[in-house]
Amino acid sequence: MSLIVQKFGGTSVGDLERIAKAAVHVKRAIDDGHQVAVVVSAMSGETDRLVGLVDGVEKDLDRQEHDAIVASGEQVTAGLMALTLQKMGVPSRSWQGWQVPVITDESHSRARVQEVKPHNLNACIDAGVVPIVTGFQGVTQEGRITTLGRGGSDLSAVILAAALGAERCDIFTDVEGVFTCDPRVVAKAHKLDKITYEEMLEMASQGAKVLHTRSVATAMNHHVRLQVLSTFTGAPGTLVVDEDEIVEQKVVSGIAYSRDDAKITMVGLPDRPGVAASLFGPLADADINVDMIVQNISPDGDATDLTFTVAKGDLDKALQVIHDSNGNLGARRIEPDPDVVKVSVIGVGMRSHAGVAGSMFEALAEKGINIQLISTSEIKISVLISEDYLELALRALHTAYGLDTDE
Amino acid sequence: MSLIVQKFGGTSVGDLERIAKAAVHVKRAIDDGHQVAVVVSAMSGETDRLVGLVDGVEKDLDRQEHDAIVASGEQVTAGLMALTLQKMGVPSRSWQGWQVPVITDESHSRARVQEVKPHNLNACIDAGVVPIVTGFQGVTQEGRITTLGRGGSDLSAVILAAALGAERCDIFTDVEGVFTCDPRVVAKAHKLDKITYEEMLEMASQGAKVLHTRSVATAMNHHVRLQVLSTFTGAPGTLVVDEDEIVEQKVVSGIAYSRDDAKITMVGLPDRPGVAASLFGPLADADINVDMIVQNISPDGDATDLTFTVAKGDLDKALQVIHDSNGNLGARRIEPDPDVVKVSVIGVGMRSHAGVAGSMFEALAEKGINIQLISTSEIKISVLISEDYLELALRALHTAYGLDTDE
Repeated sequence: MSLIVQKFGGTSVGDLERIAKAAVHVKRAIDDGHQVAVVVSAMSGETDRLVGLVDGVEKDLDRQEHDAIVASGEQVTAGLMALTLQKMGVPSRSWQGWQVPVITDESHSRARVQEVKPHNLNACIDAGVVPIVTGFQGVTQEGRITTLGRGGSDLSAVILAAALGAERCDIFTDVEGVFTCDPRVVAKAHKLDKITYEEMLEMASQGAKVLHTRSVATAMNHHVRLQVLSTFTGAPGTLVVDEDEIVEQKVVSGIAYSRDDAKITMVGLPDRPGVAASLFGPLADADINVDMIVQNISPDGDATDLTFTVAKGDLDKALQVIHDSNGNLGARRIEPDPDVVKVSVIGVGMRSHAGVAGSMFEALAEKGINIQLISTSEIKISVLISEDYLELALRALHTAYGLDTDE
Repeated sequence: MSLIVQKFGGTSVGDLERIAKAAVHVKRAIDDGHQVAVVVSAMSGETDRLVGLVDGVEKDLDRQEHDAIVASGEQVTAGLMALTLQKMGVPSRSWQGWQVPVITDESHSRARVQEVKPHNLNACIDAGVVPIVTGFQGVTQEGRITTLGRGGSDLSAVILAAALGAERCDIFTDVEGVFTCDPRVVAKAHKLDKITYEEMLEMASQGAKVLHTRSVATAMNHHVRLQVLSTFTGAPGTLVVDEDEIVEQKVVSGIAYSRDDAKITMVGLPDRPGVAASLFGPLADADINVDMIVQNISPDGDATDLTFTVAKGDLDKALQVIHDSNGNLGARRIEPDPDVVKVSVIGVGMRSHAGVAGSMFEALAEKGINIQLISTSEIKISVLISEDYLELALRALHTAYGLDTDE
């Protein structure tokens, strides 16, 4: 009998009625002959309420207590889900992180899982009882409760699926799967049946919110087949799998975008060795992540223009750091610009196809969209453009790469 | 250095502001040179909210899940209290039942504590860190979360005080202590400085809500000195102690009352051996507790009148059981009466003083109050009267036994 891990996010367990709907998916999988282990998030809004209480005392005072408090949300949902399944005639019981146990390191609020001991859960499953495991939480060797940080419940599900040797890990959420592009912007976007781990990883890191990069990377490393699907429809979702499971591969699988970047241009920077190090060193020390970087020769001889992006939330801090570093490092002026977006086309097919970047630039040029920065990886091309052109760019690229539903 | 256990109930930790006020009591005790261990309830209303969620699925389906869900309330308060103390500069950390551990049997929702392993808490206290322990909850040998039932957090505090060899267990609540009588009814009632365990036990079982009988009995058995006091005033409360700690003992220490009883009179019951057994046997089988019982000869020869009380909530069920038992057991008629109250005067001084009952009957007779039933124990006299006379009776007795504040 094959084992499936099913994970239900906060909106899927937002109230008793939704928990009952989620439980139907569990029962259906069992009726189909599978064994099932379930992972649940806190009811939507509950984690925020608990974090609000903690911050009401004082923010970042003691992450150990923060975790003990915040982890209680999953505890409630796990119990309610177990009760709901029992009521439907499905034997079930809840397991908290410390009961499994899910052993983590001591980095509270962003703990890394060190080991999931599968013995208790396997015994539970073998006894015909569906285990409902609290997502998001673990326990240190010393017995203190930890939480895994953002996207933690997905991560719990993936790690559990790996530990239990599950055939698949189903991530039930409020969307139908992974789309070629954000369907709220691009009406012709469609759900992908399959996507590779690498593409999903790029999609997630370039702004697609459906899965967190940590969960995808962990699934990739442990070869856990993921499915993203909707709790509310019951239709098949998107499978995230190894490349060899995908027979016919398009050149571009999806288009992601992010509004989280801001651009900084240092105009007329003295063009001498070490100037980049004097800039990016202090930024790194200040914990500011720099993403895209482009340097080009300034028309006026021995100076250069340097442009790069940082997270929008870090913009002011970055400008301060630059100012404090030896008076702007001799740049003639600094031009910050928060009104930019990053658009990325992603696809493993790029490895074997030439001209993908060219089509991108052409499609954007046709619409009169100016490209401010470009960066590429093996399976991704990202451009920075003015945010005014975001929707236009996404629709143009979606059409250019043959992703529109009617094609 | 002497150790004090401080327990804060739901209203004392009802929001962050109240938790901060409660924390002041902890800090004060530490500044006074004590070591402190704290026990907290869930924020007021929280346990009801969680029970509501459980019952929203289905009531009494699985007490194990019920306990796992409901216990999360204390977990939140313990963390918040620890954070609040840290913010005030007092090192502190939370301990959940399973972390201590507080080992219980497997009677979920009304578990009995089998053992508190004091090692972890002692190490914590010795390291100068105030432990904040979740009240109400424990863990089975197999690692499942249990709760202790009504009054559970007080009980947790008492058991912890015993396990840690505390000098005293302070129960912080929303009243100033134990009063000679309910001050909402008897304006001249006053707070007692001290009361014996036995008196407190009778007060609690006869309707005084301030402490639960289980906690008092446990404190008595383990010689844990209890103090009941208000979180909101900071004034000394009432000490519950061994009799030998109380130098000058009044004959009557307090007057309790209960509206929870209902009276049943079986008129003209055939006066033959075994009739009482045929009545009370089936009631006991139906889990109906009978409290006061009086039997007297009926004027008409070979019949008898039998009167007894049951919990008001059990009245209908009791009447049904009687009806089903061989058609009312031959009684001429059954007279149920829910409009009764039980008034009890309590005092260890009764042991050495005669005439206490006489004064009671006299005081009630003077006000024209008819006594329907009487029962006595070594340190208590209870009478059942019509509920219309409750306030009048309490005030008359309070004066008669010299308990009024101006005396």
